[in-house]
Amino acid sequence: MIKARVTVTLKNGVLDPQGKAIEGALGALGFDGVGHVRQGKVFDIEIDSADKAKAEADLKAMCEKLLANTVIENYTIALN
Amino acid sequence: MIKARVTVTLKNGVLDPQGKAIEGALGALGFDGVGHVRQGKVFDIEIDSADKAKAEADLKAMCEKLLANTVIENYTIALN
Repeated sequence: MIKARVTVTLKNGVLDPQGKAIEGALGALGFDGVGHVRQGKVFDIEIDSADKAKAEADLKAMCEKLLANTVIENYTIALN
Repeated sequence: MIKARVTVTLKNGVLDPQGKAIEGALGALGFDGVGHVRQGKVFDIEIDSADKAKAEADLKAMCEKLLANTVIENYTIALN
């Protein structure tokens, strides 16, 4: 069994209203010096296979097809 | 400037309908051997400070107060 963590983040330059809202909320809570905040998604995926190369190729295809919108998002794949 | 990545994931045993939906969608797309999928959130936060210890304490407080619901979620903080 392979455990993978896929992290999907917005590309630079793409507006992130959710991140902006969190930035404002942190300031309102009294945290000083908070700069930009960007929010992304993380997926922990288990794959029943021992073939790391195939798992990585599959995960890449999953990102391209479902998990990430590659027009506005980047993704990274980390295998454990 | 310190860049930090906060990752918030559901605790074990907490139902994750979004993860289940992704699991089903990946199966429907023809990906074999996909086991459990869990979805979480990631926050990339910039802090205007050079004091790593204070930044880490602040980030912990941010998680406890705003970013994570510690009843059902775990969080990890990674400083770059």
